[in-house]
Amino acid sequence: MPLPLEMARLFTEEKIAFVKRMGLKADALEAGYVRLHIPLAGNENHIGTAYAGALFTLAEIPGGALFLTSFDAKRFYPIIKEMNLRFRRPATSDVTVEARLSTEDIERIQQQAEQDGKAEYLLELQLRDTSGEIVAESRGVYQLRKH
Amino acid sequence: MPLPLEMARLFTEEKIAFVKRMGLKADALEAGYVRLHIPLAGNENHIGTAYAGALFTLAEIPGGALFLTSFDAKRFYPIIKEMNLRFRRPATSDVTVEARLSTEDIERIQQQAEQDGKAEYLLELQLRDTSGEIVAESRGVYQLRKH
Repeated sequence: MPLPLEMARLFTEEKIAFVKRMGLKADALEAGYVRLHIPLAGNENHIGTAYAGALFTLAEIPGGALFLTSFDAKRFYPIIKEMNLRFRRPATSDVTVEARLSTEDIERIQQQAEQDGKAEYLLELQLRDTSGEIVAESRGVYQLRKH
Repeated sequence: MPLPLEMARLFTEEKIAFVKRMGLKADALEAGYVRLHIPLAGNENHIGTAYAGALFTLAEIPGGALFLTSFDAKRFYPIIKEMNLRFRRPATSDVTVEARLSTEDIERIQQQAEQDGKAEYLLELQLRDTSGEIVAESRGVYQLRKH
């Protein structure tokens, strides 16, 4: 069973101190769908726009948040294998990301991890500023592993 | 002229609050060569190893640190265009990275930025734990831009 919503929120926002320090928040946590955002304040780079490491983290956490809402956290855990991030334009506001996994994908990934001990899942995401412009695009390769 | 050493250190370790919060430290800052490390403590993920976002940041900052030690900070500034990170094994200790740019590369990049207003530079790095094992490999594309 996936985690209860409030536990998924706690794990997403506070389980990793690094993530908590940057103020990442979960706006939606549903089976197969998450929406997260980070504040610009406190996460600026040397020219006052969102720092690359903060954007990376916003792009990376959806893999774990979708795990919490969609997979059986008692039987599996996620790790990240590879991440590519392309910075499209400076982010001068808070930044939001949405990520989805279909019910079909969730079942397929979980069945494969059950059978083989691990299964990859891929997330290709767009990070957007508050006006909806894409500031960065990511491609993350995760692996669901059996405990 | 590149920045004086103590100013380069201050900029590398403290200019970006996000970076300061994770405790990144510069062990060497020379023209064409930098060595940086991050502590594991405070940067752990959900399974107690170094969090991906901390590894990303350790891989990303050398582009800026080399800028500070090697390029003319009065005339140019750096931005990051793209970063790829491959996670090879969990990091269970502090993590170190070294990065180099040859004198020839520094001159060529700076001349191109002077002429065209911008010039790309590429850093392919290895992140290592305290036993010298590679925990992640990165490929970062930066751009030197003229003020």
